[in-house]
Amino acid sequence: MHQFDRKEIEDLAKIYRLNLINSVTGYKSAHLVGTCSEMGNENLAVFSSVVHLGSNPALIGFILRPTTVPRHTHANMKSTGVFTLNAISKDQIEEAHHTSAKYPEGVSEFDYTLLEPEKKRDWKAPYVKGAPIQMGCKYLNEYSIAENDTLLIIGSIEQLYIKKGLLQEDGWVQLDKGEIVSINGLDGYALPSLLERFAYARPKK
Amino acid sequence: MHQFDRKEIEDLAKIYRLNLINSVTGYKSAHLVGTCSEMGNENLAVFSSVVHLGSNPALIGFILRPTTVPRHTHANMKSTGVFTLNAISKDQIEEAHHTSAKYPEGVSEFDYTLLEPEKKRDWKAPYVKGAPIQMGCKYLNEYSIAENDTLLIIGSIEQLYIKKGLLQEDGWVQLDKGEIVSINGLDGYALPSLLERFAYARPKK
Repeated sequence: MHQFDRKEIEDLAKIYRLNLINSVTGYKSAHLVGTCSEMGNENLAVFSSVVHLGSNPALIGFILRPTTVPRHTHANMKSTGVFTLNAISKDQIEEAHHTSAKYPEGVSEFDYTLLEPEKKRDWKAPYVKGAPIQMGCKYLNEYSIAENDTLLIIGSIEQLYIKKGLLQEDGWVQLDKGEIVSINGLDGYALPSLLERFAYARPKK
Repeated sequence: MHQFDRKEIEDLAKIYRLNLINSVTGYKSAHLVGTCSEMGNENLAVFSSVVHLGSNPALIGFILRPTTVPRHTHANMKSTGVFTLNAISKDQIEEAHHTSAKYPEGVSEFDYTLLEPEKKRDWKAPYVKGAPIQMGCKYLNEYSIAENDTLLIIGSIEQLYIKKGLLQEDGWVQLDKGEIVSINGLDGYALPSLLERFAYARPKK
């Protein structure tokens, strides 16, 4: 096996280390976060750190890196109180990745990609048209992670839309039926296929 | 599309809601967390919330649900200061899932699965033999998430082992070359295949 200890990781060239550490932590969720400024400017950015926090209430979390990530997304969700999470499907990966380009404030990524905004139920943040799962979320809180000056954003799921064919009888949503992707590192997009679903695990006698 | 608003989600039956909300947030990373008590009892538990926090220093985070997740893992990492993260590969999913069964304290999941512990460099937590990526981590801190009484655990990567064939020239690790899986909901295991890697995105003129 290849081996790296902490000192060796610290001594790596910056890009090599970014690629390495972003990919060894495993597959990541793939979302487009939609927001809108008070002035009505729409914003869209790809995120790979959305995690499930709890089901009752339905809460999600994601990590913001204030130094590298577009701050428009953060400013917008704090001022309007809402954002959307849109699952990225196979046919949207190239356009989704392009939203990571650093456009000036006031420029909408919808204008520079083939992705189209979709308004629903007067939600003050745009959804991504055609996304197989769309969530209208409220911004609830943020926690400063002192170890590296990142932020954990907490949001609640207020509106949930799921494409027909994904939702199963017991509430489980089969993501590969929507060709939803996952992210490998900073720039790799992978398409998962279901291997198996297991029963609730009980101790062996 | 299927639609649920907040009230409808709250009114769902518990298991349906657990399945739904755990799966709509997208694909999750799949890790076995290895720990050891001060008494030398080994412990292994499957986690699907590990996220990349930063590369310099190399930091990870994951969510603990004190009310539902085995507390042995938490107690062990706090008392010894270390734990391991082991990527789950296709051939280990059934055994990995079984570690979610609630065994009493003092019982090692290694004794009730075909998974084998591996000791390396005197690290005071067991790795999982054969895991394509193994990380020896230090427990650094934890943050209480007031919104639902969960904990965000912060750890640093101190030792990193990667199976031959996955590590590319620029530091990127191609996870599908190790048949590393991702998790769909509470109990679905999926195998991703790389679609594409994109260049660093720059604004269009």
